[in-house]
Amino acid sequence: MPMPTESTLNTVLSHVDAHLPESRDRLFELLRIPSISAQPAHAADCARAAAWWRDQLTALGFEADVRPTAGHPVVVAHHSGAAGYPGPHILFYGHYDVQPVDPLELWHSPPFEPQLVDGPHGKRYVARGAVDDKGQTMMFLEALRAWHSAGSGIPARITMLIEGEEEVGSVNLDPFLRANKHDLAADVALISDTGMWDVNTPAVTTRLRGMTYAEVTLKAANRDLHSGIYGGSALNPINALTKILGQLQDEDGRIQLPGFYDRVLPVTNAQRTQWDALGFDEKAFLGGVGLSHPVGERGYSGLERIWARPTADINGIWGGYTGAGSKTVIASEASAKVSFRLVPNQDPAEVFEQFKRFVTERLPPDATASFAEFASAPGIEVSVDNPQVRAALDALAKEYGRPAVFAGSGGSIPVVTSLKSILGLDSLLIGFGLDDDQVHSPNEKFEETCYHHGIRSHVRLLAKFAGV
Amino acid sequence: MPMPTESTLNTVLSHVDAHLPESRDRLFELLRIPSISAQPAHAADCARAAAWWRDQLTALGFEADVRPTAGHPVVVAHHSGAAGYPGPHILFYGHYDVQPVDPLELWHSPPFEPQLVDGPHGKRYVARGAVDDKGQTMMFLEALRAWHSAGSGIPARITMLIEGEEEVGSVNLDPFLRANKHDLAADVALISDTGMWDVNTPAVTTRLRGMTYAEVTLKAANRDLHSGIYGGSALNPINALTKILGQLQDEDGRIQLPGFYDRVLPVTNAQRTQWDALGFDEKAFLGGVGLSHPVGERGYSGLERIWARPTADINGIWGGYTGAGSKTVIASEASAKVSFRLVPNQDPAEVFEQFKRFVTERLPPDATASFAEFASAPGIEVSVDNPQVRAALDALAKEYGRPAVFAGSGGSIPVVTSLKSILGLDSLLIGFGLDDDQVHSPNEKFEETCYHHGIRSHVRLLAKFAGV
Repeated sequence: MPMPTESTLNTVLSHVDAHLPESRDRLFELLRIPSISAQPAHAADCARAAAWWRDQLTALGFEADVRPTAGHPVVVAHHSGAAGYPGPHILFYGHYDVQPVDPLELWHSPPFEPQLVDGPHGKRYVARGAVDDKGQTMMFLEALRAWHSAGSGIPARITMLIEGEEEVGSVNLDPFLRANKHDLAADVALISDTGMWDVNTPAVTTRLRGMTYAEVTLKAANRDLHSGIYGGSALNPINALTKILGQLQDEDGRIQLPGFYDRVLPVTNAQRTQWDALGFDEKAFLGGVGLSHPVGERGYSGLERIWARPTADINGIWGGYTGAGSKTVIASEASAKVSFRLVPNQDPAEVFEQFKRFVTERLPPDATASFAEFASAPGIEVSVDNPQVRAALDALAKEYGRPAVFAGSGGSIPVVTSLKSILGLDSLLIGFGLDDDQVHSPNEKFEETCYHHGIRSHVRLLAKFAGV
Repeated sequence: MPMPTESTLNTVLSHVDAHLPESRDRLFELLRIPSISAQPAHAADCARAAAWWRDQLTALGFEADVRPTAGHPVVVAHHSGAAGYPGPHILFYGHYDVQPVDPLELWHSPPFEPQLVDGPHGKRYVARGAVDDKGQTMMFLEALRAWHSAGSGIPARITMLIEGEEEVGSVNLDPFLRANKHDLAADVALISDTGMWDVNTPAVTTRLRGMTYAEVTLKAANRDLHSGIYGGSALNPINALTKILGQLQDEDGRIQLPGFYDRVLPVTNAQRTQWDALGFDEKAFLGGVGLSHPVGERGYSGLERIWARPTADINGIWGGYTGAGSKTVIASEASAKVSFRLVPNQDPAEVFEQFKRFVTERLPPDATASFAEFASAPGIEVSVDNPQVRAALDALAKEYGRPAVFAGSGGSIPVVTSLKSILGLDSLLIGFGLDDDQVHSPNEKFEETCYHHGIRSHVRLLAKFAGV
């Protein structure tokens, strides 16, 4: 088979342009599968999404399997690449699962009936998973398909790893990686689950926050009580929980867990200068969601607070009577989900212990606290000084006509840690989401222009790896 | 018709004893109707409970109607009494509605399938409404029935007023009382919705706490946000709500609403001495529900904290993701239901305004708060120096062989205020509940001995009013 040339690349890119509607249709097909990993009722949908991926990859000449785990299955597929290409063996990681859809009443259309609607950047796709991560993973699949259909074959050795539990903390992925270490051997990991700087400016993400996600339940009386009979005598666990969680941050936004900041490293002046130069408009960023006053730690810039400072957010709280009208009850228990975004060098397990101690030390007599930990990942910094990153910067600059920026991400992608520690792989994070994509929220969307350029960027990156 | 005598009274009491199983069966029939006023799905059950009462009263010779309101209907029934009795015209007030049953999983039997089970005081009835207020109201009905069946006819002029919205704040009752003022004219109101001192010691309740019940919702962003993308920049309304509500009480249990205590009157030394003499065992009171450390304001006795001091309890709280597992969301809003038990002389409307101000003054930029008020009633003190109270004390002492105590109640019975202000009636509060009846909680129960003695006490009270 001939080596690809600049001309082959242009043919493949034209093929992408000409067949964008079919690429969109295939994405919509995947988006119609309600593969919500957090909800046991959707387990069969997760299996269906996995099978869908297997079939798509098989059609492109991959050897593809759906492999069981203790939770939702993992899709693994191999393609040895058209003969003779010199490039690296790429492990592409993505996930087919999506977040729950509540509050459902805020969606303008059913979350699993993808819509093509007009927006300021042209058409956009609206559905749960449109960008996170179905849209992002499909771009790579469509790039492979274009090389397969219109080019000289897939120009690299590729392993695909598409899991189904990213949105619930990837709890079964590490054992899977350990058990399949040899089968997943590669030179570099490629992940598309991050964002662009803006719709015209591509980004390579080099810094990710980690996470400790805890659930706490306070229990008091052994049953619900009448607040008239017991009010003034019996401990109210909701009052107690709000009193404790209300102390998580001080007036300056500093998190009050003792020792929480001990391992937090300041960013370098060089880094700060580079970020300041990006001209992040936090007012506009917040304005897009109806806010105008930044919160978080006093004394740090907006980008620094999002990319390089840890947080404490209560993601959910519940207890007592939450129906219509009034019920004069003192509940027997109250619960909250509390997550900490972490920065590199903080230890998620240590933070979980700090949180437990913070709550336990503040418990009033008669209250007991129980804890659960859901997702846990350290923050990480990706090395930027290697040929894969340089190839990516080059491909992106060609596609967009401007240099890509080195970005941080406020979110965590725990798999990056796992791929490094278990498989020894560095990750290349190239994503095409925008800040206003409403990830994890009602009316999640993905811009068609991002989808289109994203496919083309992956086509170019594959060419780069093949030496074009 | 002959005037009743001591002998008639004894015949009626024996009839009560002999027919207790049928009295219980009739109560169980009423308990099987799931008349939950707070839940629109049970509106037809509320109507069914009202019709049941009308039919029961009609069978005893009452002229009885089910009358519509803007909410659930009210049953009104009149009986002119057997001729020639000199006693007062009694307005008996009760309610046929019950509290919601959640958390359903904590019930040992279905809440609307009444069970007869063994307990330390003999048999007990377990069902939602067993004591509050179906059991309590049925005792008066059964006393009337006994006089009707075995005595010389019902020995007083009686008006029955059985409403269906007590558990949702009786929002439509005041307009109903105003519109039916003449039809509801009487000399004294009789209410059975309170408790005994203990299973052997009857009580007349002379002091009730009032209530302000508020719901607050904090809103921040115009949609749910990803905590990775926005964490450290966007306001989290759950963090904000816990911070605000966590300040409701200080370390001494003092409520922090400015002006909240301005109108609170200290109890007299005489009152305090009387209560201290009751030997209230707060450890045992709390021990019954698995607690051991009293909360509430430091420096007050247990009875004083429950009967004569105001409280602030968060009855429900909700926001964000409350399902299984983790979701890394910053919610767009968070809500809580907060109720204040009030003492005589506090103004519920003023406390609602104080709460609104307390929250509003603590709102961070970007948060808005909205408020709803559900139930509202001032605390009250009932005069004890009148012939009806003396008659009640006498009847109870005869039934139990020991004097009744003057009790306070931590709960509110807003209708007492309405009956006074609209109909000009003082209320006589004689109830037969026990502290461990699990009112408003799973496994609500009523002791058969309380039911039995309660019926007999009402039989005796009716005799007292008829001069026997």
